[in-house]
Amino acid sequence: MNNKKRIEDYGVTIGKFSKGKLNKITDVKGVKVGHCTIDTQENKTGVTVILPQEGNVFQNKLIAASYVINGFGKTTGLMQIEELGTLETPIALTNTLNIGIVHDAMVSYMIEQCEKDHIEIQSINPVVGECNDAGLNNIKKRVIQKEHVYEAIKNSCVNFEEGDVGAGKGMTCHKLKGGIGSSSRKILLDNKEYHLGILVQSNHGLLEDLTISGKNIGKEIAKRIKVEGTIDKGSIIIVVATDIPLSSRQLKRVCKRASVGLARVGSYIGHGSGEVVIGFTTGNIIEHDDKSDLVTIRIINENHMDLLFRAVAEACEEAILNSMITANSVVGYKGNRREALRDFIKGLMDV
Amino acid sequence: MNNKKRIEDYGVTIGKFSKGKLNKITDVKGVKVGHCTIDTQENKTGVTVILPQEGNVFQNKLIAASYVINGFGKTTGLMQIEELGTLETPIALTNTLNIGIVHDAMVSYMIEQCEKDHIEIQSINPVVGECNDAGLNNIKKRVIQKEHVYEAIKNSCVNFEEGDVGAGKGMTCHKLKGGIGSSSRKILLDNKEYHLGILVQSNHGLLEDLTISGKNIGKEIAKRIKVEGTIDKGSIIIVVATDIPLSSRQLKRVCKRASVGLARVGSYIGHGSGEVVIGFTTGNIIEHDDKSDLVTIRIINENHMDLLFRAVAEACEEAILNSMITANSVVGYKGNRREALRDFIKGLMDV
Amino acid sequence: MNNKKRIEDYGVTIGKFSKGKLNKITDVKGVKVGHCTIDTQENKTGVTVILPQEGNVFQNKLIAASYVINGFGKTTGLMQIEELGTLETPIALTNTLNIGIVHDAMVSYMIEQCEKDHIEIQSINPVVGECNDAGLNNIKKRVIQKEHVYEAIKNSCVNFEEGDVGAGKGMTCHKLKGGIGSSSRKILLDNKEYHLGILVQSNHGLLEDLTISGKNIGKEIAKRIKVEGTIDKGSIIIVVATDIPLSSRQLKRVCKRASVGLARVGSYIGHGSGEVVIGFTTGNIIEHDDKSDLVTIRIINENHMDLLFRAVAEACEEAILNSMITANSVVGYKGNRREALRDFIKGLMDV
Amino acid sequence: MNNKKRIEDYGVTIGKFSKGKLNKITDVKGVKVGHCTIDTQENKTGVTVILPQEGNVFQNKLIAASYVINGFGKTTGLMQIEELGTLETPIALTNTLNIGIVHDAMVSYMIEQCEKDHIEIQSINPVVGECNDAGLNNIKKRVIQKEHVYEAIKNSCVNFEEGDVGAGKGMTCHKLKGGIGSSSRKILLDNKEYHLGILVQSNHGLLEDLTISGKNIGKEIAKRIKVEGTIDKGSIIIVVATDIPLSSRQLKRVCKRASVGLARVGSYIGHGSGEVVIGFTTGNIIEHDDKSDLVTIRIINENHMDLLFRAVAEACEEAILNSMITANSVVGYKGNRREALRDFIKGLMDV
Repeated sequence: MNNKKRIEDYGVTIGKFSKGKLNKITDVKGVKVGHCTIDTQENKTGVTVILPQEGNVFQNKLIAASYVINGFGKTTGLMQIEELGTLETPIALTNTLNIGIVHDAMVSYMIEQCEKDHIEIQSINPVVGECNDAGLNNIKKRVIQKEHVYEAIKNSCVNFEEGDVGAGKGMTCHKLKGGIGSSSRKILLDNKEYHLGILVQSNHGLLEDLTISGKNIGKEIAKRIKVEGTIDKGSIIIVVATDIPLSSRQLKRVCKRASVGLARVGSYIGHGSGEVVIGFTTGNIIEHDDKSDLVTIRIINENHMDLLFRAVAEACEEAILNSMITANSVVGYKGNRREALRDFIKGLMDV
Repeated sequence: MNNKKRIEDYGVTIGKFSKGKLNKITDVKGVKVGHCTIDTQENKTGVTVILPQEGNVFQNKLIAASYVINGFGKTTGLMQIEELGTLETPIALTNTLNIGIVHDAMVSYMIEQCEKDHIEIQSINPVVGECNDAGLNNIKKRVIQKEHVYEAIKNSCVNFEEGDVGAGKGMTCHKLKGGIGSSSRKILLDNKEYHLGILVQSNHGLLEDLTISGKNIGKEIAKRIKVEGTIDKGSIIIVVATDIPLSSRQLKRVCKRASVGLARVGSYIGHGSGEVVIGFTTGNIIEHDDKSDLVTIRIINENHMDLLFRAVAEACEEAILNSMITANSVVGYKGNRREALRDFIKGLMDV
Repeated sequence: MNNKKRIEDYGVTIGKFSKGKLNKITDVKGVKVGHCTIDTQENKTGVTVILPQEGNVFQNKLIAASYVINGFGKTTGLMQIEELGTLETPIALTNTLNIGIVHDAMVSYMIEQCEKDHIEIQSINPVVGECNDAGLNNIKKRVIQKEHVYEAIKNSCVNFEEGDVGAGKGMTCHKLKGGIGSSSRKILLDNKEYHLGILVQSNHGLLEDLTISGKNIGKEIAKRIKVEGTIDKGSIIIVVATDIPLSSRQLKRVCKRASVGLARVGSYIGHGSGEVVIGFTTGNIIEHDDKSDLVTIRIINENHMDLLFRAVAEACEEAILNSMITANSVVGYKGNRREALRDFIKGLMDV
Repeated sequence: MNNKKRIEDYGVTIGKFSKGKLNKITDVKGVKVGHCTIDTQENKTGVTVILPQEGNVFQNKLIAASYVINGFGKTTGLMQIEELGTLETPIALTNTLNIGIVHDAMVSYMIEQCEKDHIEIQSINPVVGECNDAGLNNIKKRVIQKEHVYEAIKNSCVNFEEGDVGAGKGMTCHKLKGGIGSSSRKILLDNKEYHLGILVQSNHGLLEDLTISGKNIGKEIAKRIKVEGTIDKGSIIIVVATDIPLSSRQLKRVCKRASVGLARVGSYIGHGSGEVVIGFTTGNIIEHDDKSDLVTIRIINENHMDLLFRAVAEACEEAILNSMITANSVVGYKGNRREALRDFIKGLMDV
């Protein structure tokens, strides 16, 4: 289903930077994304996994950072990222009440990987993000199991699907159907082409606030349909990947600017909306069992950070719009319905 | 000059909340603002002081918080606000290289106030914010003196001027003339009317990014004029005042949402732009020498925070626009010129 | 086995404050602690649960805070505590690789409790702490199951056991046997008696650094026995409970001072030692579905914080010593042995 | 007066690491320290400046970090260090009410240095720390002037004086005479010798808590003399210097461990005691106007951080003791007297 039309296919241009080939987070070399979707009458939920690189990420850790826009959420693994500045597992996304099971599955997976690779492992820090899909999913049934995590990993690929798949299946964004969305930007440094990519699990916002390229389209849609709820009880998880060499401090600064894209689509960072940014760079490898006392890393000249700041803001804005525009309308638990943005965009945007 | 037209007078409506009577930070009862402007051929700079309440703020401290959007700046006093959650001086704004002198003047002022009020004082934490006005001001001459701070305090009033006055004199915002701007919102809680107000010292942003109510007007203006510089080396100080009773944790959450308004006007939080939010509430008084062991404070029911979050985002967006639209074009140091937004708004906005 | 001798029974007096009746965290009224211990040849591990109050803590949330001394750890739930300043579940402690399962069990438990109490629940933030017991426990087998969490809750009581029980079963502290330890202090405010209590899961430190009441006893013990490892790969979880009314900001300040007690026993906060403090106060209740717009809380007069700071430092120091002195020597996985402190204390301390 | 006896000269050995040649912060190559002391009947105060390297530090910035143990203080410049991870001025220490003037003097000094070196400068971030010397100094007179800062810089040298000099003149530590103290440790990495050094301005603590090498000597001294005040209203500024290559994240971790040394001398981090750690490394240079897009830095292998953690804890403990043992007893403003530790140490320690 990867031929779904994306926001750029509707003539909407976000920002001014060039996009990567796929305009997805996987334009960062080595990154793969996999989904496992649960789609029954009662349960609309799933798992999405972002594999940050080829090979064993516990052995070859990546410099990482996170930024908490609004901490009303349950994402695991951020404390260690903040302290050590490294990522040592894939990043998994799921629903709020299945965080524990997915965490446990990631521990299993990493132990197996390390045993296969003859790497000693007794401690591991899985990063698991979540949004609450109780609007479409009977969340208290907690249907996600270990095998769904493994399947998502097995399904991982470069040209992954967006919209109402994987952890995006039960998402509601600006009171319409949300889901998984992605985008990327190209950045030239020292005459070499680098990429910065975003993947979002979008589940936040009010309809009246939805804004596309400056146009407050949500207010118009609100005249046509009645949506459930007037409170933002959502959440969004934003994953930032890049191959630009950065320190974790620099990467945290980059993550923070994702909030700009979020604001431009219409979020005012609602109280109930857990909004978390997790970033990693493949530009430096931190070997788990490096024996040398001192190591060398490359970082960006801080004076050039604006390139990344603008790129992350643009890509985040576009990724959120892609998560919505690619999603189908869904009728879920208790007959709750979420409309698809694409059923409204024509006529409302000049597209 | 208080009859200057503001952004609402051009038919631009930001957000959906009701505004306070003056639509200024001083709609929060007790708050006053004073300017002292230095306007010579060589120096365009000044001091703006926000008095948070009637009476001695060292004796009757206010609950306060701050949020650093981008810490490339020199604002003083935030460490203690973060630790103790209180404000004990007025807030002064000035240029980057005069932070020390203004800090020292605030110490003098507070010692004098406390001696007058027979309050023992041996330590004081002045909060002084700054933006860099080197584009219009010979900043290295550092013309601000103690008397300018005192004059700004003396000039403080409720219906204060906006635009290119006080610390706003040398400001550049989105490469046009910036300055001091303000706005406020009304919020009803337990059937009582409260206010949240904003004052900004705006000095950030690129022309091409300037956006008013979703319209990217900056791109159009950029076709007509040539501006100096393509890098955001600015800064913005955002002061949030409210009479809604809050804890410092709650107030910090409110301050954070000012970044939404900033993003909507076009900032992507540039590397060189120190962006700092300082908030206080008059809704609880923390007595300096309270003798009781336990004290009672009122706070908002956290479930109602969204009211404040939306209000602060709206008011911040409007305050920035007011800072620009009320400012005159200025020719400053070395003949550098900053154009006034109001000379372009007609025709570009449908107003 | 509650008649085990504690550090005070050896004549060691830590600090100058009066202790609570039991000298345990449960001197804070309403707090209960339960263990479930797994003690096989291969597995020495378990679960310890701290119930913060009678009744449903999701419905009647407690003001909470956390402080990360060293973030090389996997504790869940801190992000939301930091944002909202409340605790809405019991606190569970276990081993590093069973965090996910215990998290999931806590979700189950809270859903059941809320359904029993007819409280709507779709989101929950379990707080689960961990230390790595791989030295004594075949940790990769991950033997902890949901029923162990439930059993720990069922076992909860006021006069709980310390030492090598529950989550303390596999602990190693200063290379001797560690475990669960507790202590409390009394504080008089406005003529009323309050308590501050500590519970630790101790798994950190080197033998040579072990210090009791200023005496570097570890150096002496090191002359007598050979211990495994010269690196601090431990961790310690410190739970602080009080009935003194505090804001979350104040409570965070209190949590921070637990590090003083830790340093006095000999920790220098090793790189590999995840050290996390989690605090809550029963002095204010935050109702989940409060309908009023503004609420009143009591806090301590900030000028009197030193009472709590000294109390938490003392109680933490004593709780760590209690965790060690009450523990038996244990032979665990692969025949690894951890000696009991009590087998060395006589003769080395003047007791 | 550099022949004053230091704590090691009394037979007290702190820790197990080797010390640098001078056992001072200046064992880190390039670091110099200068004092300017004001010593009148009414005023006991001064300025101490730490020059972090030869040459222009604005042009050749150093990687830096800070850690706030207790934020009840007024140190300037930390926000930018936190954001950018660099130091661009010398570090100045003074009394609480002269922070502004010293800040202003540092701006003057840096502008002059940069003009001399033909470096464009329009913004600068002076780092100025402070402790309150109101016990011995008529602090409200604010006698420090620009020339005192310049004189301190001029006086800078490698083998600087400790005790009641410079910013240490008016200090009170554990209710005895405090001041400036220093210490250093040697660390071998990749077969090369590196240094980590500490300088403290000590002004915190209660007499009864003073502990030397585990012995609570303060309790004994308290039996002999009556000291003023039972509250810790002090503060301590701790400067950490090293030539070990670190990232700012790593350096922040190192700074945090200074608190261990503080606790061992007897601090429990009093409410009124602003305790701030500022660190820099000369191991990487960040050029102000570097033109390349990507730069290379060296950092330590994170697995070896324990070496630095132990070193900084040891050196901080010893530096505090040196600040006290080298100080003379002083009679200051209003006849207030602070006794010298060295008048008590014999007989109380086995030295």
